[in-house]
This record gives sequence, C-alpha cells and structure tokens, in this order.
Amino acid sequence: MADPEPVISSCSSREEENRCTFNQHTCPSEERLLEDQMRRKLKFFFMTPCEKFWTRGRKPWKLAMQVLKIAMVTIQLIFFGLSNQMVVAFKEENTIAFKHLFLKGYVDRDDTYAVYTQSDVYDRIVFAVNQYLQLRSISVGNHAYENKGAEQSAMAICWHFYKQGNICPGNDTFDVDPEVKTECFFVEPDEAVDTGTLEENKLNLTLDFHRLLTVELQFKLKAINLQTIRHHELPDCYDFTLTITFDNRAHSGRIKISLENDISIRECKDWHVSGSIQKNTRYMMIFDAFVLLTCLASLTLCARSVVRGLQLQQVGAAFS
Amino acid sequence: MADPEPVISSCSSREEENRCTFNQHTCPSEERLLEDQMRRKLKFFFMTPCEKFWTRGRKPWKLAMQVLKIAMVTIQLIFFGLSNQMVVAFKEENTIAFKHLFLKGYVDRDDTYAVYTQSDVYDRIVFAVNQYLQLRSISVGNHAYENKGAEQSAMAICWHFYKQGNICPGNDTFDVDPEVKTECFFVEPDEAVDTGTLEENKLNLTLDFHRLLTVELQFKLKAINLQTIRHHELPDCYDFTLTITFDNRAHSGRIKISLENDISIRECKDWHVSGSIQKNTRYMMIFDAFVLLTCLASLTLCARSVVRGLQLQQVGAAFS
Amino acid sequence: MADPEPVISSCSSREEENRCTFNQHTCPSEERLLEDQMRRKLKFFFMTPCEKFWTRGRKPWKLAMQVLKIAMVTIQLIFFGLSNQMVVAFKEENTIAFKHLFLKGYVDRDDTYAVYTQSDVYDRIVFAVNQYLQLRSISVGNHAYENKGAEQSAMAICWHFYKQGNICPGNDTFDVDPEVKTECFFVEPDEAVDTGTLEENKLNLTLDFHRLLTVELQFKLKAINLQTIRHHELPDCYDFTLTITFDNRAHSGRIKISLENDISIRECKDWHVSGSIQKNTRYMMIFDAFVLLTCLASLTLCARSVVRGLQLQQVGAAFS
Amino acid sequence: MADPEPVISSCSSREEENRCTFNQHTCPSEERLLEDQMRRKLKFFFMTPCEKFWTRGRKPWKLAMQVLKIAMVTIQLIFFGLSNQMVVAFKEENTIAFKHLFLKGYVDRDDTYAVYTQSDVYDRIVFAVNQYLQLRSISVGNHAYENKGAEQSAMAICWHFYKQGNICPGNDTFDVDPEVKTECFFVEPDEAVDTGTLEENKLNLTLDFHRLLTVELQFKLKAINLQTIRHHELPDCYDFTLTITFDNRAHSGRIKISLENDISIRECKDWHVSGSIQKNTRYMMIFDAFVLLTCLASLTLCARSVVRGLQLQQVGAAFS
Repeated sequence: MADPEPVISSCSSREEENRCTFNQHTCPSEERLLEDQMRRKLKFFFMTPCEKFWTRGRKPWKLAMQVLKIAMVTIQLIFFGLSNQMVVAFKEENTIAFKHLFLKGYVDRDDTYAVYTQSDVYDRIVFAVNQYLQLRSISVGNHAYENKGAEQSAMAICWHFYKQGNICPGNDTFDVDPEVKTECFFVEPDEAVDTGTLEENKLNLTLDFHRLLTVELQFKLKAINLQTIRHHELPDCYDFTLTITFDNRAHSGRIKISLENDISIRECKDWHVSGSIQKNTRYMMIFDAFVLLTCLASLTLCARSVVRGLQLQQVGAAFS
Repeated sequence: MADPEPVISSCSSREEENRCTFNQHTCPSEERLLEDQMRRKLKFFFMTPCEKFWTRGRKPWKLAMQVLKIAMVTIQLIFFGLSNQMVVAFKEENTIAFKHLFLKGYVDRDDTYAVYTQSDVYDRIVFAVNQYLQLRSISVGNHAYENKGAEQSAMAICWHFYKQGNICPGNDTFDVDPEVKTECFFVEPDEAVDTGTLEENKLNLTLDFHRLLTVELQFKLKAINLQTIRHHELPDCYDFTLTITFDNRAHSGRIKISLENDISIRECKDWHVSGSIQKNTRYMMIFDAFVLLTCLASLTLCARSVVRGLQLQQVGAAFS
Repeated sequence: MADPEPVISSCSSREEENRCTFNQHTCPSEERLLEDQMRRKLKFFFMTPCEKFWTRGRKPWKLAMQVLKIAMVTIQLIFFGLSNQMVVAFKEENTIAFKHLFLKGYVDRDDTYAVYTQSDVYDRIVFAVNQYLQLRSISVGNHAYENKGAEQSAMAICWHFYKQGNICPGNDTFDVDPEVKTECFFVEPDEAVDTGTLEENKLNLTLDFHRLLTVELQFKLKAINLQTIRHHELPDCYDFTLTITFDNRAHSGRIKISLENDISIRECKDWHVSGSIQKNTRYMMIFDAFVLLTCLASLTLCARSVVRGLQLQQVGAAFS
Repeated sequence: MADPEPVISSCSSREEENRCTFNQHTCPSEERLLEDQMRRKLKFFFMTPCEKFWTRGRKPWKLAMQVLKIAMVTIQLIFFGLSNQMVVAFKEENTIAFKHLFLKGYVDRDDTYAVYTQSDVYDRIVFAVNQYLQLRSISVGNHAYENKGAEQSAMAICWHFYKQGNICPGNDTFDVDPEVKTECFFVEPDEAVDTGTLEENKLNLTLDFHRLLTVELQFKLKAINLQTIRHHELPDCYDFTLTITFDNRAHSGRIKISLENDISIRECKDWHVSGSIQKNTRYMMIFDAFVLLTCLASLTLCARSVVRGLQLQQVGAAFS
C-alpha cells in the first residue's frame, strides 16, 4: 500500500533533518520537534510490511493473517463448488433415469420422442402408470413415493380438452367451444400389493382426440443423494416433481411426449450416520469456525488501522 | 424534411429584413411586402414539426399520426407472420406424422428409406393401404377422408411399367418397348365398417419387377388447424394430397420410397365457435378498420401537403 | 490472332504509300510494286475475321464454323458425362442393394459390420447362401445368375486356414504351420426349384476358428441398366463379381464382414427395342456424323491456312 | 565436416610453398620442414571424404559405412513400429469383441451403455456369466481361460455396499454406515461340461440396491496374436484382465456399465512353428547381428578419429 510515497517522504524528511543539523541555530523550537515526531509516525504508518520488518524488525503477522484468510476462503469455495456440481449431476442423472423408466422405448438423446397412433398413446400412458406403481421393485435408485400422512401420494392423470367440439374435416365444418376443460383422476400406489400392475382396461381412459389438447401425468418422487457420504458430507433429501406431457395442441397427428423434472432440495429430517462422517462434519465445523475467527480478526485489524489513520489525520491537521 | 435549408433561408431573410429597416427609403413598395409575406409562408412550409411547435405552438398531430400508422402496420405484420409460421409448422408436423403412419418402420430423419426385396414391396403397400383404411381409429390428429358427394374419396394405387418387356440379364438379351403404360385401381374406405383391414391376398396385386418403373399410392386427406383458436383466430381447413412413390426406375435392386405432401389451404365452409373467438374476430376487424382509416387520413394529409407545395411554387414563380 | 500487328503495319504501309506519292521520282521501280503487293497480302493474312469483314466485306464463315464446332463438341461431352454419371450411380445403387440382400441385419452406412460369435458366422453364411439361391424371387432389380452353357454359375464358398494348428492360449503354447490352405465348395442355384432354401445342416460347414483366416463367398450376377432407355440410349449389360469376406486374420474375436463389388460393363449380345429408341439412336448417329464432318472441315481450313502462311513466308524471304 | 576451413588452409599453404620456392635461401631449416609436414597432415585430417577421394584417391568407405548404418537402423525402426502397431490394434479389437460378447445389447460406439431397472441388472450379470462359461463355443477368437494348475481360473463376482443402511426417502430419513463392505463369489468354468449355461436362479444373487455401490465381474482371458506369423514374426501371448463394472455409486436410478481391459504381453512358453517362420527368424537374427557389427565398426572408427585428432592437437601444441 502506497509504496513509493513513503519512500519519497522519508527522503525529503531526511533532507530536512540534514538541513536541521546544518542550520541548528534556526530550528530548535518546540513545535519543530513535534512536527518531526509527527512526520516519523506518518512515515511508519505508510510503510509496507517488508519495510516495517527491515526498519524496526516487526514480524509481518498481519500480512500472514491476510494470506491465511484468502487461502481458507478459497478452500471453502472449492468445497462449495464440488458439492454443487454433485447436486447438478445427481439431478441430471435422475432425469435420464426417469426418462428410461417412464417413457416406453426411450433411447438416449432422442429429441423426437413422439407417438402417432391412438393405441400408442394409451400404451404409453398405461406403461408410465405401471412403472410408477411398480417403482419400488423396478428402480435401482433411492426412489420412493411421497408419504402424505398415512397414505402415499398418488399420480395425477389430467387431460385438457376443448369443452365442446364437433370437428368434421371431411365436410370442412366444425363447431368448437375454445374454452378448455380439465379432468383428472388419481392412481394410488398400493402399499400392501407391492408390485401391482394396471390392466389396460382398469385405467378406463377414453380420450376424444379431436378435442384433446394435452394429457399430463404428474407425480412426486423422493430420493436421497447418498454419494455425498463418500465425500464426508451429509446427504441431502430431494423432491422430484415429474410431469409427463402428451402434447396434442397442434392436432397434427403427432403427439410429442416430454418429461419435465422439477427439483427441490431439503435437509433430511431424521438421519443417522455411523462412524467417520460425524467426525468429518465436526472437522468441517471446526474449519468453518476457524474461517469465521480469521475473518473477524482481519476485520478488527482493518478497523484499528482506519481509526489510527483518522487520528493521525486530525493531529496532522493541527499542524497545518 | 429539408431541415437545414429553411434555417438558412430564415437567416438570410432576417438579414434582408435588417437591410430593409436600415434603408427604409428604398423598399416600402407593395411588391416588397408581398414578397416578404411569401418568404414567411415558404419558411413555415419547410419547417419541421418541432420548429412549427416552437415558433407558432402548433401541436405535431400530423407527426403523431405517422408514428401511429407505422406502429399499427408493424403490429399487423407481426400478426401475419405469426399466423404464417403456424401454417408452415402445421404442414411440417403433418408430413412427419403421415410418414410415421403410412411408411412401415420409418424413423425420424431417415433419408435412406428403401426396400430391397419383393415381399417387402408388397408388405409396405399393404401396410400403407391398411393404415389408410383404418385412419379414423389410428390417427391422433384431425384427419379425415375427403367427401365426394355421397361416398368418400378412394386411394389410387397406380403402377407404371414398360408396355412390353422380356429381360434376360443371364443371356445378355432383352426385348423392351420403352413406352410407359399405367394401371390403376382404387381402394375405398368403407364408412360402415370403420376399422376394416385389408387382407394381403385381397389386394390382388402382382408386380412384374423387371418391367416395373414406379408404384404410386395417391390419396387425399383433410384436416383443420384447430390450434389457431387458442390464438383467437379462425381455424383454416387444409387439403393434403399425399403421394407415396416406390421408385424402381433404376432397376438396381433398390426401391426408394418417398412421401410427398401437397397442401392447399381454404377457408372452412361451415363453422361455429362458441364464446370468445367471435369477439376477438370483431376486435381484429375493428383494428383493421382503424388501420384503414389511419392510412386514409395519412394519404389525405400527404395529398394536401403536395397541393399546397404546388400552389406556393406557382405563386413563387410569379415573383421571379 | 495477331490483332495489333497488322494494324500497325497497315499504318506504316499507308505512310510509305504517301511517301511514294510525294517522292514519285525515286520509287517507281518494279520491285517496289511487288513489295507493296506483298505487304498488302500479309496485312490481309493477319487480319481478324472482323477486320476482313469491314475492309473487304467477306462473311466470317470460318469463324462461324469454329464456334459451331466448339458447341457441338461441348454437347457431345455433356452427353458423355451424363451417361457416365448414370453408370456410376447404377453401380453404387447395386452395391447398396447387394449389401442389404446378402448381409443379414445390414443398415445403411454401417462401417462396423462384424460378428462376434461362432453361431453368428454360420448364420450369416447360411443367410447369404439362401438369399443367393432365392435371388429371382427376392430381388426387385434386374439381377440374374450367369449362364455357363447349360447350367448356371455357382456360388463359391472358400475358406482359408493355417495348414495345421494346435493353439492353446490357456497353456501359452501353440504349434502352427503358417502355410495357408484353401478349401472350396460350390452351391448351385437349381433352375427347377425356383425358391429353394438351404437348411442349415445341409451346408455341412464346420469351421475351426482357431485356424481359420478368412471365409469368402464369391459369385457372379448380371444386370441390365434399363434406365438408359428413358434417356434414349441403348442399355448396357453389367457383370457384377461379388465377394463377401469374413475376415478372421486378426483372431481377435471380431470377424469383420465386407462386400466387394467388381463391375464390368459390356454391350448386350442380343437386343430389341420397339418404337422410338432406334430413331433416337439414328439421330445420335447423324449428330455424330455431323460433328465428324465439322471437325474435318475445320482441319482442312487450318491446313490451308498453314500452307498459305508458309507460301507467304517463302515469298517474303525472297524480298529480304 | 569443416569444409571451408581446409580449403582456405590449402590455399594459404600453397602460397607459402610458393614463397618457399621463391625465397629458397631463407627457409631450409629443419623446423620449417616439420611444420610443413604437420600442416599437410592437419589439412588432410579436416578434409571431407570427397576431397580425400579427389586429392589422394582414397575410397570413401567410412562414409559408406555411416550411410549403411543409418539405413539399417531405420529399417529396424520401421519393423519395430509395425509390430507395435499390430499389438495396439490387437488390443483394441479384442476390447471391442469382449464388449460385444459380455455386454448384452451393446452396439458400437455406445457411450451411454447403462441399465435402469433391477431386473436388467440381474439379466446383464447372468448374461455376462453365461457368455463367460460358454466362451469356448462362442468366441471366434483365440480366447481361453487361464489355467491355474489343474483347474481353470474362475470369474470373480464382487459387490461393494454400505455395511449397514436403512434408507427411507419417503420419510426423509436414513441410517447409514458409510463403511464399505465387499462380498465375492466365484464361478468356475467346468471343463467337462463344455457349454454349460447358468440358470438364473442358480446364481443366487440378491442385491440390496439401496446399499449397493458397485458390482464387479472380474476374470482373466488369454489369447495368442497369431497374425504376426503372416509377417514372419513369432506370435506373442496376451493376458487380458477384464473388469465389468456396474456403477451405482450415484444411486440416481442409472447404473452405468463399463468394461475395462488390462493387457499384459508375454513370450509364449512352448511353441512350434513349422516351415518358413524359423528361417525368417534366423534372417531377422542375422540382420540384427549385422546391424550390431556395423554399429560396432562405426564406433571403433569414431574412436580412432578422436584419438588421432587428440594426437595432432598435442603435436600442434608443441609447435606453437
């Protein structure tokens, strides 16, 4: 800080000292001595840690503290980034897994996933519902239904359609009420029958494709990101809100199917990890506390330096 | 318009006015006064709306009308572009859907769709015919056959072949009449039996592949682009003329199969939309009328300005 | 040709003429007149067709003939290129068709076509043989077996292997005779039984994969490129020599399968085309004759021009 | 080497000789003669082979030897590179073959090979084990099990899992011991029953997917790279250590499957190759011996040249 200035002032002050010794008969007044003392104080105030060490032998422990602070904050940042990257990767891998689980015949990186016949639409819906019902015996991940009190959360199957429609393209005539109506019903996973499947007739779903706009299958799944344990971090609990949309708004004969995966991350309610993880969490806490202390100390030193600077300014103003 | 010129002329006229006041004894003639008046008129005629407002306080309502006109025409253009884009997208999505419906085993973006064996050719033809016959129970779009009076339009199956041919590559001999003959027959969708399928032997089609040039399956489908309703526009009626071509002109052992989709868009004959769409159409009409009025007013003002300019020119010519 | 020079010489000669008229008393010698005549001849010899037309009114029919010649040769070249392009396209399409006919499960642009199990190797061989035997009822092209006298050409199935081999990788020991032996047998398509298929055991083929180097299936097919008829050209007869190679030379567990297609084009022996094609061939002949005549005429004119130039040179040499 | 210098010295020495003949009365001293001799020796020492040949007619056989040495070493290098390239290609082809043999449904260049359901995991494990057991009757390569004394090496199926885990994502609770345990069992290929397959229940494998981290299938295969025989080289024996990893560490519902292939190359223990290969190996040995001799001779010549140079330097130092 302000490296060249103090050097210059020290030079000039040294010259003045010389002049003082030469012209001893003109400057031995009381004021002159105070001014001299003041000048030395200022000079020391603006010195770099190095100069302070060379001139008075003072150890640069304040500088060391700053370096320490920077290193620790950087380490914290790297930990934070790594754990964040793991969250993003976990979300993406889950989305891919859900696409393979709930979309029949899905292949990776297929951006043209769609169906073109009525039977395929029913087939895909029944497939997704069945996969949902059998999830516990199918999925290889930590997926589970959401518990809502005593029972488990159901899958909502909703379809949106024009309220009333009589479309005859053969005669070039139509009679449509563009108001959109929505009908839903719910499929609940049965806790007792673990791997129950849905017969196709049981779904009892009949869609009027002329009026149909979209079919939406919405359900919630929960998961725990256990892999953080291996990095000695506490696992987080994830809520996935999945929406499978059959989009027929264009009525072009092509129903695009997409799967959206909304994610929310929360701390798990009740957890217990045996062995080493607690220790590591404690280490992380100690490290965090240490970072906090270092930052506080740095703040205090900065404040003291500012206060001293202001004091020097006031005293200096008295001279001028 | 002509911003710098009026300013210059105003300057020079001011100088002349000054000269007039200085040499009062030489210029109080009648003509001089008229010329002065003329000059002021010209000055005002070439002023910008801003200057007119600053010098005489006239509101720039003509400028405002121009800005309004530009804005309204731009909005009209955007509406037109959006509705056009919807038409193009609708056509492309329908073509993709038709390819998936009528071409067996078609996968997206397959530009090498072809067959290599005789049985595959019959298989693909029968598949396409059956899909056509079952269209109402298969398609998820608003597709329908074309009504021709009482009955529905049939699919034409035509094959083109050399009139007479006796090709023996084994002996390096051939006897060909290069005149091309065409034979067609028609498959009519039966209204009563909704999902009738075609047995393979029922088609009774035997192709002589040595003489065969092309097989063409041609049929018409109709559709209504309902999605415009959600944008508060009236749906259009579409006529698709589909041609599936089996191309054996090369006789190379590879029959390329392509699907062409010709489109024609017409206003629907008889339609009824409940609720909000009529209102919106009215709004669009009112908006269109308003644009018309604005354009007319702008035209009138332009004409008036031109007429005034000509009058000034004539008067000015009298002075010179 | 030599445009600027003649102009210059004409100028200078004109000057000399003027000098002649001025100094009449010094130049009326016989030699001078001959030289003058010579100069005029030279001038005319080096004139461009345009200048010849402007100075003496001679029609530039030699130039016209050159232009005609260039145009006709260009047209011939285009015809030649188009018919060549058709040959290349025919060969490539046939190769693709053969790959789909004889390689089981082949998909377009698959450069990793290979098998990895012993049963797959037998399966692919039997498939190719069966497709060959049923070719007439399978292929959609003008493919036929080669007739060799009374009977039809057979498919040769050859395998190359180390003469003697005892390879035990488990013990790190082997005993090999690197001499390569070849065994072949032939499968003949039966004319009587048109669509005979080969039972898998009938092939009676047992390969010792430890010693096996390659299996080659080689056969000849014939075809006639009929599509040239539509371009009013006579069809050519094609001989395809197909070689399907199962390459195990690496003994890496991966047998690459490739299909080579050697082509030879010949004129068909005996052909008859009714109707328009003869006429067109006659037109082509007339056109060719015309090109020949034009080229001959052009050659004659060139020769005459060269001869005249030499004569002029000799005469000119006499003067200098 | 040092081309310009000797030329210059020869020029200057010639001048000096001339001066000697001119001033015969001043230079007939003993020392002078020795110096002259010395100079000539130096001149010859720094001559290029060409100059030596032109001045004294000495054949440049040392140069020839250098050229020969370079050529031979280059040939050796090319042989070495080719045989190395064969090793790398053999390893890569084997890895591809193993992927096709042991990974069910693997297609070339599939970098997203993974499974998403529990039944698929068991299915892929059983498939890989069965393919391993039937290897001798499936593989088309020179693959064999490793012999360990009397019996053959087994496939190790190991799974790694959290020691204790009770994960309930539905309740946001978990109880995990992050210590990783490993359990293995071994499947031995039965020599007697050559193509024994594994019934799915026989494997008796039940995985707790909530706790599962990875499943590893590890086994050793041996092969002999016979194709080197065709290049007249002795085949090498290869040991492949294959590891198929089912990675569930992320617990995201997606188990990635990868196949690693570690390779070690050894000389085969006991081999016998009839016919030409021994001869060729002998030729290679003779060639190698010849290269060795050439290099030794080149070394000797170099050493001699250095020694002579040093001697000349010493003698030269005596003069100065």
